[in-house]
Amino acid sequence: MSQESEPEYTEGDLRNTGMSLKHERTWDYELDRIVDAVEERDASTVGLQFPEGLKRRAPRVADDLRGILPEDVSVMISGKPCYGACDLDTYMMRRTDVFVHFGHSPMKESEKIIYVPLFSNVEVTPIMEESLSELSGPDEDGESQGDGEAVGRVGLVTTAQHMNKFDEMRSWLEERGYTVETRRGDERLTNEGQVLGCNYASADVDADQILYVGGGKFHPLGLAMEHPDKKVVIADPVNNVVTVADTEKFLKQRYAAVHKAMDAEEWGVIFCTKIGQGRWETAEEIVENNENAYLITMDEVTPDRLTNFGLDAYVNTGCPRITTDDGPQFKQPMLTPQEYRIAIGEEPLENLEFDTFHGTW
Amino acid sequence: MSQESEPEYTEGDLRNTGMSLKHERTWDYELDRIVDAVEERDASTVGLQFPEGLKRRAPRVADDLRGILPEDVSVMISGKPCYGACDLDTYMMRRTDVFVHFGHSPMKESEKIIYVPLFSNVEVTPIMEESLSELSGPDEDGESQGDGEAVGRVGLVTTAQHMNKFDEMRSWLEERGYTVETRRGDERLTNEGQVLGCNYASADVDADQILYVGGGKFHPLGLAMEHPDKKVVIADPVNNVVTVADTEKFLKQRYAAVHKAMDAEEWGVIFCTKIGQGRWETAEEIVENNENAYLITMDEVTPDRLTNFGLDAYVNTGCPRITTDDGPQFKQPMLTPQEYRIAIGEEPLENLEFDTFHGTW
Repeated sequence: MSQESEPEYTEGDLRNTGMSLKHERTWDYELDRIVDAVEERDASTVGLQFPEGLKRRAPRVADDLRGILPEDVSVMISGKPCYGACDLDTYMMRRTDVFVHFGHSPMKESEKIIYVPLFSNVEVTPIMEESLSELSGPDEDGESQGDGEAVGRVGLVTTAQHMNKFDEMRSWLEERGYTVETRRGDERLTNEGQVLGCNYASADVDADQILYVGGGKFHPLGLAMEHPDKKVVIADPVNNVVTVADTEKFLKQRYAAVHKAMDAEEWGVIFCTKIGQGRWETAEEIVENNENAYLITMDEVTPDRLTNFGLDAYVNTGCPRITTDDGPQFKQPMLTPQEYRIAIGEEPLENLEFDTFHGTW
Repeated sequence: MSQESEPEYTEGDLRNTGMSLKHERTWDYELDRIVDAVEERDASTVGLQFPEGLKRRAPRVADDLRGILPEDVSVMISGKPCYGACDLDTYMMRRTDVFVHFGHSPMKESEKIIYVPLFSNVEVTPIMEESLSELSGPDEDGESQGDGEAVGRVGLVTTAQHMNKFDEMRSWLEERGYTVETRRGDERLTNEGQVLGCNYASADVDADQILYVGGGKFHPLGLAMEHPDKKVVIADPVNNVVTVADTEKFLKQRYAAVHKAMDAEEWGVIFCTKIGQGRWETAEEIVENNENAYLITMDEVTPDRLTNFGLDAYVNTGCPRITTDDGPQFKQPMLTPQEYRIAIGEEPLENLEFDTFHGTW
């Protein structure tokens, strides 16, 4: 395996962690796999796609590749924003012989795509040790107790970049007497125990508490929203903090958006053209049943792009994280499909759930 | 023809005029052509694309269309930014039975595309009357005079949105004794006398002075840069002002960008994936001859997208107006391909020309 040997500080992070890095990281770019694919396919073009926080590494990876590939092979870098494995640069994919997507695990396997997940080298057990104070632990004999409540039973989830340490996390908990519940959520997820910013089905396990090991606050917040009956403990090995997910502030923000949108007369309904973010039936259904709704297709959903249309409110059928995390930046209320149904009176407000995304493409 | 009858103020303008509207305008959206195409093709989907300043009209046009089209036809609106006929929403074009591009004249005819140019209804002769004070006029007998200089000879150009009045402009000048020189520049331009923000070949006529009738300042500035030997008089019927194009400030800005880029060690070379903005050979040539240059493919070229890469300077082989008009917003210098050659010492600074774009796709 080709690997960077010198540790160095990076200036960014995968966007979906939501925080800047404070720890050293090195990644294995798996250049050998790329070189093999170039040889096998007699490729003349190689396209590289990185998530936002890793784009700074792209020129270095291109350097390394150009150094070991035949001279007549062109290496190019995608400059389009990229926020997940749902967000492939399909233009580049169609026009290069070898297309490499870095930083995310496969959402759907394809011969066209080499996925290089870029696992973190951050140690996870020190922060897990600290997180135990927030978890209901096992008895000294390691058995459950109480009114059917599984004490010492814990669901375990993490993100793609720490997936390489998932077995270590599980063993570490089991050695301390915990019963660890895990599952692979659905086809959108590559691995058992993996969660995405838009999919927490791996946390749908028989445990009242979930330990999320990973960076950032957005994933565990979505997790807590999706599983309101469970306590979600966050062990963040990147920023070295333990917290418990609190959905109250988030819910208030969503209620405010829904209330504001109740006055809307005209709606823009966004269909996202990114390969893994399309919910066509959802978008179409809204437009068919509301003569004041307009179907708008776009890839990047940004405040500027929407403001130009001058509509009163928007429903985003694409990435739920745009709606919930970036929502306050938009000048008009932007709702999830379910929030839209609440705003027009088709569902009661107390039904409000986190918008999750299932399936691939 | 279906036509909006009531005049109303619009809040924006075609982006390429560079100024906001002050005068009333109505447009003919040519809905009959769209309805005919739906019928002919037995279409079930219609896609509408508008330039930025007209996106606000899109819901109204969709309303009108939905009112006259069969109920099972879906109408959708492109939410992608659009800055010219070079900038078609190809995703929408491929996925709709009828695709309509509003606000620009055809860059290349295609059965897939209905172009609706949206001509301005602003009167042009009042401001042309005022512009005469800046033009060398004809003798009383209407003949040329002087050392071979064609007094009373004037080149005439305008933009797509005033093209409907081009014959009127020409006749008006001829009635006043002018010899009017016009031509159709090259295949990128639909009409005789038409200029684009990236192509001024229609001004390549035998006259020392050019009258530009149209809104904004960017088109005539490019025109003056491209034809430094000619006096360019701007008769702006939208903002009702007459000015003479002055390239000095613009040149200073470009010299500054080139000088700053002379210190660059690493270059990003942008290949734009928009259908009419690709100059592949230009981009490839730079990367092949500079081992510190990296090929980056993208559609929208914005400061944020480039900053992520952390390179020292950029060469934009896509839309020249991004480089020249938006250049100062970028944190690193962004150069045209020729400016790049100057910065690396392959051409002298005094060669600096405006970057124009020829051909279609």
